[in-house]
Amino acid sequence: MDFSGAHILSIEQFQRDDIERVFGTADRMEPYAQRAKITRVLEGAILGNMFFEASTRTRISFGSAFNLLGGEVRESVGMDSLSLVKGESLQDTARVLSGFSDVICMRHPQAGSVAEFASASRVPVMNGGDGSNEHPSQALLDLYTIKKELQGRGRGIDGLRIAMVGDLKYGRTVHSLCKLLCLFRDIQVTLVSPPELAMPEDLLALLDQAGHRTVATEQLEPSIAHVDIVYSTRIQEERFQDRSQADLYRGRFRLNQEIYTRHCEPNTVIMHPLPRDSRAEANELDADLDKNPNLAIFRQTDNGLLIRMALFALVLDVVHLVDKYARDIRWHNPRLPRDQAT
Amino acid sequence: MDFSGAHILSIEQFQRDDIERVFGTADRMEPYAQRAKITRVLEGAILGNMFFEASTRTRISFGSAFNLLGGEVRESVGMDSLSLVKGESLQDTARVLSGFSDVICMRHPQAGSVAEFASASRVPVMNGGDGSNEHPSQALLDLYTIKKELQGRGRGIDGLRIAMVGDLKYGRTVHSLCKLLCLFRDIQVTLVSPPELAMPEDLLALLDQAGHRTVATEQLEPSIAHVDIVYSTRIQEERFQDRSQADLYRGRFRLNQEIYTRHCEPNTVIMHPLPRDSRAEANELDADLDKNPNLAIFRQTDNGLLIRMALFALVLDVVHLVDKYARDIRWHNPRLPRDQAT
Amino acid sequence: MDFSGAHILSIEQFQRDDIERVFGTADRMEPYAQRAKITRVLEGAILGNMFFEASTRTRISFGSAFNLLGGEVRESVGMDSLSLVKGESLQDTARVLSGFSDVICMRHPQAGSVAEFASASRVPVMNGGDGSNEHPSQALLDLYTIKKELQGRGRGIDGLRIAMVGDLKYGRTVHSLCKLLCLFRDIQVTLVSPPELAMPEDLLALLDQAGHRTVATEQLEPSIAHVDIVYSTRIQEERFQDRSQADLYRGRFRLNQEIYTRHCEPNTVIMHPLPRDSRAEANELDADLDKNPNLAIFRQTDNGLLIRMALFALVLDVVHLVDKYARDIRWHNPRLPRDQAT
Repeated sequence: MDFSGAHILSIEQFQRDDIERVFGTADRMEPYAQRAKITRVLEGAILGNMFFEASTRTRISFGSAFNLLGGEVRESVGMDSLSLVKGESLQDTARVLSGFSDVICMRHPQAGSVAEFASASRVPVMNGGDGSNEHPSQALLDLYTIKKELQGRGRGIDGLRIAMVGDLKYGRTVHSLCKLLCLFRDIQVTLVSPPELAMPEDLLALLDQAGHRTVATEQLEPSIAHVDIVYSTRIQEERFQDRSQADLYRGRFRLNQEIYTRHCEPNTVIMHPLPRDSRAEANELDADLDKNPNLAIFRQTDNGLLIRMALFALVLDVVHLVDKYARDIRWHNPRLPRDQAT
Repeated sequence: MDFSGAHILSIEQFQRDDIERVFGTADRMEPYAQRAKITRVLEGAILGNMFFEASTRTRISFGSAFNLLGGEVRESVGMDSLSLVKGESLQDTARVLSGFSDVICMRHPQAGSVAEFASASRVPVMNGGDGSNEHPSQALLDLYTIKKELQGRGRGIDGLRIAMVGDLKYGRTVHSLCKLLCLFRDIQVTLVSPPELAMPEDLLALLDQAGHRTVATEQLEPSIAHVDIVYSTRIQEERFQDRSQADLYRGRFRLNQEIYTRHCEPNTVIMHPLPRDSRAEANELDADLDKNPNLAIFRQTDNGLLIRMALFALVLDVVHLVDKYARDIRWHNPRLPRDQAT
Repeated sequence: MDFSGAHILSIEQFQRDDIERVFGTADRMEPYAQRAKITRVLEGAILGNMFFEASTRTRISFGSAFNLLGGEVRESVGMDSLSLVKGESLQDTARVLSGFSDVICMRHPQAGSVAEFASASRVPVMNGGDGSNEHPSQALLDLYTIKKELQGRGRGIDGLRIAMVGDLKYGRTVHSLCKLLCLFRDIQVTLVSPPELAMPEDLLALLDQAGHRTVATEQLEPSIAHVDIVYSTRIQEERFQDRSQADLYRGRFRLNQEIYTRHCEPNTVIMHPLPRDSRAEANELDADLDKNPNLAIFRQTDNGLLIRMALFALVLDVVHLVDKYARDIRWHNPRLPRDQAT
């Protein structure tokens, strides 16, 4: 695809070589995210960070990514902004707001809304999550994390063995990840969920068409025994009409250090889209895993910054200029090296 | 007037030559708003964008205008900030907040509040809308749009023929526009509204004193037949005690492409302060007008950015320095040329 | 203490020489806060201004302080962000957010929360107020104000005579100020409050251990007669279960120009942590004091900007570089000289 000036709305826009281009660009952003140096390549550019639904971490990740490239951020947060669009079409909102910035990141509770907005925008629009539909930068950061975690081990995305655990019916992140995996070869996907929260049929069909092997099961322990990645998700209680129903599932797929040690191969990577529910009764990923160097959940969010920097650099066509406008930082960087950081 | 260090509180501060100075400055901001180049003239300056009432588009327009001049923006959004002033006088709030920035834009639901705030501020204050009272940058962008739309046609503000349509009783924008028009010569104003929502007497008297001709009518079609500008406004249902009353007026002054073609002179310009109500029953300006090149409603908001840049440049006295600190942009500018943009 | 890379969580971290270092650094920030020049020393750095509780003035003071050093600010405001942490531990939130910025300022309604957050942060964290616990930059700006107000008079913090007035039981600022005063010598503290709102015993004990003299009283007039500073606080009605109880105290320690003239020594300095309740029945500090040059309440908030700039410069270890990356401002500075400003 031609990234220059493109909207980033859906992972379905990406072919395998596009993904490799995003990942290669993300790799080049590492010194800036690590604060070894700064770049001013986007000095004078404005990101319109339009969040019509609260999502602090995604909003700040996009905003910081843009700042790290030297640009400015104007933004909108949640409810205040919903009143704005009362009666106004998303196209009108887009015509107005796209006059105020050079690129827009938009999050909105309604599926399809970001594409509708983009259709009338005069600047590139990035989907920061449109309800149950898409959140492409999250899917890309998940896949990028898989690649980076495995690359020191002589393993890669082709040939991957992954267990997806939890709510596979409503979990937008696992759906998107499955779609991205279809661009790769020879993957084994173990789907661990209660039958009521199983992976939808259409996604199973896509995985099948791609030649991947899938197994659906309710048993956690055997499923995590021979995989490279355990991708855990939270039971989204807000999806249940009767919330007490959600309690039936909570804790059923709990992972802690003892279970990990007993069942997993050494170096099995643990992922989670975050936030992780840390309340006593949640039982998703126990805190005793925090010292496990294979817990990659915070490296995922760090990678999100790199992916978002890469997307901005590609869409605004400055990848080749990022290093040209770089210089050393002037302040003391107290940040731990990323590898020691979790 | 001497703009340097001045508060911009009301359109009544402006004489005709002040307005021409603002418009001339706005013209010079065009290459920056179009992203042909950037300027760093206000690098290091801080705008305090103090919105004590939600208004996403106005807030972002002011913020982006300041960013486009190279400055930073600190801001406050709606409700969160109202708690701040509980028990505290506006003067105290001003004394505190004006220590944190170089210029303040303020929006507040209460008429007169911005002037009260400005009286104790140590930095220039711009009125971003104080309830039913004033919103001077909106009035200026409307008049600037009229000037720009007509200038290729050998017509100007002097001698203008304009129809104002809709709620002329409560519409702050048409009131301010009438006041500004009083600074010009030989204008014909057709006022199309239900009698209950007619233009207030004091404004009619001002237009009359200025030597302008006014006609009040309930008939849309004949009124738009021989004018340069149709300025449509929305029926502000929130102004009616009984909201069903508002429904009586809705759709009464509907404008669509067919009505336009049948009644208007070619090139009659359509304006609206936005947001336009696009719901099926709204019937203000139909979507089929979106392809009409004379629909100027999105050029209005684009002009708002230029007007706000001009006001900042004038008040901070950097008009002569804007180009000195300019340079080319480094990124790909995917923006359509403004003329093709609507 | 070694400021470089340190968290600033509590005034108990500070020894006397640390405080003097902060104050000396704050003095050097004056030309930047006054806009005589700008510095770009932190160009490319990002402050994560994480307010999980609304506090517009503190939030903007931290943000502007960072901007004045040349850095960018990403932020979070109040309620929107609370939903973020639902079920997520503060440590997880810290692990995520600290990947997005170079330093974090955090405000949170829960005592101890900022320290908990800091324990998992990869970047320095500043406490912007954690419930009833600490608000160290406020305490430092109060003490800095005392020093600056007295320094032209041959008096200093050692040997200070101060009256603290109002709600001394719940007032976080007076508690912190008492602790800081314990690092100095020979201080006389007059505590004016109703017995129900008296200074807690543990703080009285600390003052006593430091060799300071304390007097507790309910009489305002004799207490303000022979002091250098009157530090007035508001009756925090939200602390009372029965709000009508708060009314009993309101107005009891009212200070106005007439009382000041009648009882105070010339040049007695009046301080208050702000906001001042200016409603008719509030009776804290009357508006007729606004012309009294010894009313230092707005100089306090101005000093807050200097203190926060100093803390950022110290923690990011750029104090020696601030002037190196300075240059003149380009715009007209309409700000009154600070001395004439109140």
